[in-house]
Amino acid sequence: MTRTQVTGGLVITAAEEIHADVLIEGGRIAALAVPGTQTWTAERTIDATGKYVIPGGVDAHTHMELPFGGTFASDTFETGTRAAAWGGTTTIIDFAVQTVGRSLREGLDAWHAKADGQCAIDYGFHMIMSDVNERSLKEMDWLVAEGLTSFKLFTAYPGVFFSDDGQILRAMQRAASNGGMIMMHAENGLAIDVLVEQALQRGETDPRYHGEVRKALLEAEATHRVIKLAQVAGAPVYVVHVSAQEAVAELARARDEGLPVFGETCPQYLFLSTDNLAEPDFEGAKYVCSTPLRPEEHQAALWRGLRTNDLQVVSTDHCPFCFVGQKELGRGDFSKIPNGLPGVENRMDLLHQAVLDGHISRRRWIDIACAAPARMFGLYGKKGTIAPGADADMVIYDPAAEQVMSAETHHMNVDYSAYEGKRVTGRVETVLSRGELVIDQHEFVGRAGHGAYLARGTSQYLG
Amino acid sequence: MTRTQVTGGLVITAAEEIHADVLIEGGRIAALAVPGTQTWTAERTIDATGKYVIPGGVDAHTHMELPFGGTFASDTFETGTRAAAWGGTTTIIDFAVQTVGRSLREGLDAWHAKADGQCAIDYGFHMIMSDVNERSLKEMDWLVAEGLTSFKLFTAYPGVFFSDDGQILRAMQRAASNGGMIMMHAENGLAIDVLVEQALQRGETDPRYHGEVRKALLEAEATHRVIKLAQVAGAPVYVVHVSAQEAVAELARARDEGLPVFGETCPQYLFLSTDNLAEPDFEGAKYVCSTPLRPEEHQAALWRGLRTNDLQVVSTDHCPFCFVGQKELGRGDFSKIPNGLPGVENRMDLLHQAVLDGHISRRRWIDIACAAPARMFGLYGKKGTIAPGADADMVIYDPAAEQVMSAETHHMNVDYSAYEGKRVTGRVETVLSRGELVIDQHEFVGRAGHGAYLARGTSQYLG
Amino acid sequence: MTRTQVTGGLVITAAEEIHADVLIEGGRIAALAVPGTQTWTAERTIDATGKYVIPGGVDAHTHMELPFGGTFASDTFETGTRAAAWGGTTTIIDFAVQTVGRSLREGLDAWHAKADGQCAIDYGFHMIMSDVNERSLKEMDWLVAEGLTSFKLFTAYPGVFFSDDGQILRAMQRAASNGGMIMMHAENGLAIDVLVEQALQRGETDPRYHGEVRKALLEAEATHRVIKLAQVAGAPVYVVHVSAQEAVAELARARDEGLPVFGETCPQYLFLSTDNLAEPDFEGAKYVCSTPLRPEEHQAALWRGLRTNDLQVVSTDHCPFCFVGQKELGRGDFSKIPNGLPGVENRMDLLHQAVLDGHISRRRWIDIACAAPARMFGLYGKKGTIAPGADADMVIYDPAAEQVMSAETHHMNVDYSAYEGKRVTGRVETVLSRGELVIDQHEFVGRAGHGAYLARGTSQYLG
Amino acid sequence: MTRTQVTGGLVITAAEEIHADVLIEGGRIAALAVPGTQTWTAERTIDATGKYVIPGGVDAHTHMELPFGGTFASDTFETGTRAAAWGGTTTIIDFAVQTVGRSLREGLDAWHAKADGQCAIDYGFHMIMSDVNERSLKEMDWLVAEGLTSFKLFTAYPGVFFSDDGQILRAMQRAASNGGMIMMHAENGLAIDVLVEQALQRGETDPRYHGEVRKALLEAEATHRVIKLAQVAGAPVYVVHVSAQEAVAELARARDEGLPVFGETCPQYLFLSTDNLAEPDFEGAKYVCSTPLRPEEHQAALWRGLRTNDLQVVSTDHCPFCFVGQKELGRGDFSKIPNGLPGVENRMDLLHQAVLDGHISRRRWIDIACAAPARMFGLYGKKGTIAPGADADMVIYDPAAEQVMSAETHHMNVDYSAYEGKRVTGRVETVLSRGELVIDQHEFVGRAGHGAYLARGTSQYLG
Repeated sequence: MTRTQVTGGLVITAAEEIHADVLIEGGRIAALAVPGTQTWTAERTIDATGKYVIPGGVDAHTHMELPFGGTFASDTFETGTRAAAWGGTTTIIDFAVQTVGRSLREGLDAWHAKADGQCAIDYGFHMIMSDVNERSLKEMDWLVAEGLTSFKLFTAYPGVFFSDDGQILRAMQRAASNGGMIMMHAENGLAIDVLVEQALQRGETDPRYHGEVRKALLEAEATHRVIKLAQVAGAPVYVVHVSAQEAVAELARARDEGLPVFGETCPQYLFLSTDNLAEPDFEGAKYVCSTPLRPEEHQAALWRGLRTNDLQVVSTDHCPFCFVGQKELGRGDFSKIPNGLPGVENRMDLLHQAVLDGHISRRRWIDIACAAPARMFGLYGKKGTIAPGADADMVIYDPAAEQVMSAETHHMNVDYSAYEGKRVTGRVETVLSRGELVIDQHEFVGRAGHGAYLARGTSQYLG
Repeated sequence: MTRTQVTGGLVITAAEEIHADVLIEGGRIAALAVPGTQTWTAERTIDATGKYVIPGGVDAHTHMELPFGGTFASDTFETGTRAAAWGGTTTIIDFAVQTVGRSLREGLDAWHAKADGQCAIDYGFHMIMSDVNERSLKEMDWLVAEGLTSFKLFTAYPGVFFSDDGQILRAMQRAASNGGMIMMHAENGLAIDVLVEQALQRGETDPRYHGEVRKALLEAEATHRVIKLAQVAGAPVYVVHVSAQEAVAELARARDEGLPVFGETCPQYLFLSTDNLAEPDFEGAKYVCSTPLRPEEHQAALWRGLRTNDLQVVSTDHCPFCFVGQKELGRGDFSKIPNGLPGVENRMDLLHQAVLDGHISRRRWIDIACAAPARMFGLYGKKGTIAPGADADMVIYDPAAEQVMSAETHHMNVDYSAYEGKRVTGRVETVLSRGELVIDQHEFVGRAGHGAYLARGTSQYLG
Repeated sequence: MTRTQVTGGLVITAAEEIHADVLIEGGRIAALAVPGTQTWTAERTIDATGKYVIPGGVDAHTHMELPFGGTFASDTFETGTRAAAWGGTTTIIDFAVQTVGRSLREGLDAWHAKADGQCAIDYGFHMIMSDVNERSLKEMDWLVAEGLTSFKLFTAYPGVFFSDDGQILRAMQRAASNGGMIMMHAENGLAIDVLVEQALQRGETDPRYHGEVRKALLEAEATHRVIKLAQVAGAPVYVVHVSAQEAVAELARARDEGLPVFGETCPQYLFLSTDNLAEPDFEGAKYVCSTPLRPEEHQAALWRGLRTNDLQVVSTDHCPFCFVGQKELGRGDFSKIPNGLPGVENRMDLLHQAVLDGHISRRRWIDIACAAPARMFGLYGKKGTIAPGADADMVIYDPAAEQVMSAETHHMNVDYSAYEGKRVTGRVETVLSRGELVIDQHEFVGRAGHGAYLARGTSQYLG
Repeated sequence: MTRTQVTGGLVITAAEEIHADVLIEGGRIAALAVPGTQTWTAERTIDATGKYVIPGGVDAHTHMELPFGGTFASDTFETGTRAAAWGGTTTIIDFAVQTVGRSLREGLDAWHAKADGQCAIDYGFHMIMSDVNERSLKEMDWLVAEGLTSFKLFTAYPGVFFSDDGQILRAMQRAASNGGMIMMHAENGLAIDVLVEQALQRGETDPRYHGEVRKALLEAEATHRVIKLAQVAGAPVYVVHVSAQEAVAELARARDEGLPVFGETCPQYLFLSTDNLAEPDFEGAKYVCSTPLRPEEHQAALWRGLRTNDLQVVSTDHCPFCFVGQKELGRGDFSKIPNGLPGVENRMDLLHQAVLDGHISRRRWIDIACAAPARMFGLYGKKGTIAPGADADMVIYDPAAEQVMSAETHHMNVDYSAYEGKRVTGRVETVLSRGELVIDQHEFVGRAGHGAYLARGTSQYLG
């Protein structure tokens, strides 16, 4: 077996910041040692002097090739995972989708078919349950047993992904018994649809009205509701893409009571705002996603939630649609704009910038971007840390390099960047996935098919 | 015009306790005077020495002749309003019911037909909206204009009275614009139906399981939800029959924020508990109502809510079903027990007992039972107080008389009392409705048809 | 006995708004009657057509002739009570002061000597306890028995009025046993003194620094503390001159728990702000009082607190010092500016303006300015309402008249107005005290010595 | 340099649970490696197969030889640190005491004299400030610069350690500028002294009254107060020995707001209760400490606080007094019982039992007992974890061994155990301090003087 060593870097995990050399053997981390004390030999040496050595990012929320509103998210598993690697992410968890009237298994098989042999990095699946019934509830048990341990339901999107409160309760009860994790898109979709209809009737068709009708109070309401349903079911619940400060407050209240309630936010809610949605010439459509961007003052609450651990995870909800031809489907009717933003490549850099901006510590950066998502979804130990026995998913990160984010230079298959022109400090230099180079000194050397499907355990935040 | 005077009593209103003589003329209160200073003459004198002179009770929540679960509430408007008068209540607000697919007007007409010429005391109607649609929303405006100013919706009873959150929002928006008040039965009916089905599958069919499946958390959840929907709509909301301490907490939180949120509880939640639901030999069925009775410890929170004004009103939700032949429909399946308790006759006495027990002050007794419900539903000034110009709806109340509540002696048309054998101090002696005697020294001297329909103004708690 | 009738007005109390004629006999209200129905005769008729007939104001917090910082508040009991009457206030409760090392009785005697024979309207006293010890604790019992039922202590002003937490607890325990009410000036004076010293050392000597050092958090802290001490003692507590939104939040939290906790604010906190403290040329000194004026955004919380009844009373804390010669003592050192504002004449008008501005209802105006302070301090029934048997302290108020507040026209003995140039709608026309005219159609016809000392009962908010 | 390896164990830190071999060289951890992959050689091998390998415990709150109430805590630095080692603790932070009127330096010198050459394990000092004044504030800066970075003040014990709120604010301000951490004993001592005096007057002299007079509300009040003072000062605050659920709630509220507020509890509050204080024959005196033991229901809130991270640290507040001759000083007057319990030897085992009881996870055990206290007080990296570069302070812990706690077998110099007869699972087998054996297979092989004084950095929870 080839041995690789990474020497001279500052190894940062959620818990430690240590100057250590790292030995890789057989795709896994074999040893860490104080520089100069190690006794091993290695065929290959990566010099990380002056750099950070961090776990590969874990993006627990992506939507490659997602069908939505009559079109498909523009990144395939091939292009999307390659872009992820460019951005220092070595694991994604995407969402397989159940079709109404069909089994979970069929949905999962379809997504396996899309991803198989395409990915540059390892990947797992959550399951979107569109049709909670006796059969799909039974299937949950089987899927948990084979390593698909998390299930997403929606209080939003009536007629599409929406489940009613009875269905949600049933799924949560099942998760309580089989150890699964219920993920919730928490917005009151029935109320929002009323407001959408009324806005369109008033001639309010621009993208910015997307932000106005999807009210913060209706996110907070649904967040509160799913927490209570989970409490009745005796189940944990993970609320995806939290964007409203009122929703953070609901999570904080539940967590103070000791409930197993978790929350994720995304870079777009931390760095963008309704000001972007109001950009002229339909440019606001680039920022249409749900939950929507919020007024800038919500950002402080999200950062605070990340610091107080009322939010545990930052994922991207990466779901890109090209401005030309896709976002444009919603000209004249904001409700027809495909919902989603590109971001899988930007997350690690944006959060490193947050370290420099004083929002979070270095260790918290690694926690929310690597360790916590791995732990939340049963991958920790293998993913999310640098420790003997873990997969050698590692990033050599240059904390001093500067870069400008742009669609011209990014690797996501989408014709715009949500952060066009944004200057950040910090940049991925080299990326290893299970000990193999994927990015080598700013050059992509990976390959479709290297990435393997990850059967996962149940959440390590529980029990 | 005949003049009547009531002399020598202690006149108690929500605001005052004064020794005063009261002059009645033309069905209204003409004057109050310090005893001995009045200069008027009167044809009739009622001596209230040593007694309380209080406004007639206003029961804002009754269901005479309500069709429910294949049967009808056992009190007609005739028997029910007579019993109300016996209990010191001179105004009821009952609920007209819209049938799904039909107009509000048709429902209202049907209820007018039931009540017209039958009532011993004055009465009004709220409207139950079973079918929120463009037409019924327009009808709301018309009804408000003609004095039916309050509309009840349900988050409970899917398939019967249930409205979804979009419908509720629309109705609230309409109320925000036309000045109406939305009343909510707040329980998460979709979730409860799941728990009902599962309980029955487990063979849990006794009445006490009615209390177990309708969880306090699911009342609190729905209470929170309707508050948030009202906030989005910019509308007030009145939550009926609050029974769970967690729901009181939601109301208190909203009221601290200054929201126009109101809450009603009922004597059964203040004096009874799940212990009653667990009575053997199917006797628990007598206490089946929704929201359900709660464990005894919830009572303290309700009393506190009444003292802190987080709850404003005590109504009865009077909806009697005989044990024999009606409650018995649910033997072997608690979900088939007709929901409802008798109580219209007992409310004023039970709350007076609460004064003696130290839960509330005398003035608060009159407030929650007379003044606040009148003010809440646009009747104050005319009803709910003793002041020049008000309707002469008055009760001479003996605070020292003792009585034992019993089906043998009560006047409600139902074969059991929820308070059988309960000994209380305080008793109605004489009741006037618009200056006419209805109860005279413990004798019913009223008549069906005296009671008039009350066109109401909008809530006096607003604006 | 002469009879006076007030006819044609709209009688407004905390509970009612009725068109009624009022009969006065022997200094008390003898009867109310629907106009046209009364049968009485009267020697004198006051025509109130188109006017409000309201209870005389009760100002529960004034400091006439108070010695403070080497000078005296500029209104004597004669000038101050005359000004109060001009402003529609017919009762004040002033503060007798215990001197450290002396008895309560000596302090009370001194204040009786100041007030006796001087007052145009009725007056009572609270007692400031400067020296809590075994003797003064015993005196509390005696004073309560003879009708001085409220005692003020300070967490502010170390070395002057300050009591430590042990002393406060002892006084509260005593009040719990004798029925007295503890009033608290709640600011953390020990911490504030540190900040004062540091500000002066930095050369921050202008009046506006008075507002900066007396931090809102330190008001909230002390408010929380005295609530907890009262809870330990089992006593009620009334927090005077609440100005910070954080303090309102503490009161709201305690009241939600059902604790007997009460709060007062003052017009200056509702209408003025730190902007006034920052007025140039030492003009800010006119607005120096403690608790201090707060940034304007606190006003909304105070208005909300008045609406939600988390604050019950608006008093003035009237404590005037002339700008020339008195406020000027603090030139170059804000800590030497005598603390206090004039306001006893302005309260009723400012709060009526708040009705027009939509902050409160008409009835709430009367509640917070007349009924609640009377009830809080054991005067209700006699003062604070218009009902048979009550003292005939009444104001004929013209709701349409306009006036401009100014030192040139006011009657307080102070050379500036805190509201100079403020235009308000509403004006006192006629004032009666126990049936005698004090202000007659904008003319002072009262006399020093008419006002009588009021022995009070214990708080009617308790028990 | 001798190399030691620890092989075959499960290495548990706050973040990881990994099967790894550990190499020690020069007193520090040189490397971790997957078992079987390491390439090093070592002179000494400790076989940890089937055992846990954990960081040595860090007890951030001990009082060796503390003078209190006319006597001295019965453990010297020699006996106390030896007992600590027996219990798996390899670092203590004790408290040097400033005498009123003297400098901090003098106090520190005195404590250095007591500890120097006596300790079996490493130790640091916090400083108790008994006299906040200009000089002692300046000394704080010097001490922080030389590695004494935390300062304890008291709202309790008037006349002894008590500082008033102005002094506390000054110390907090100083800490805000020099990076120090203020530790607070938070109980309202002035109020408690009143209650103590009254209890003794009533003849309530038994130990259990110690628990009754030191009310939970008075702990919560002081906790709230010091949080607000810290907020005004812009400083962090660490509340020691939190025992009341109401105090935990104050910490949770502050932390939700993102304030740098921290809390410690102790094993006695987690495992003992007022039932112990009520033990007959003056046995309750064994459990007299301040804050006092609370009724058993408080324990759940403390465990929840540890899980939700509203409490970060479990220390012992080890302060032993023999029952005979010392605790007995308070016979007939509970206020004369020396305050304190033995515990430094029991902490790691009791918390391991809590893992087995389901209160906390294994990693959380290490976090609250090792990592968090190290991080809180500037020792992390060196202490509190097992990572390359850290001091080789390690414990081989047998998770399956059973033991019974008893004064007969413990090594603390005190004649009773607070946990006499308690059976727990889990036991320390071997302890290393900086790579040297202190306990070797249940045998003490350490020596007085091995332990070195630790200059500490500022808190790693900040910035």
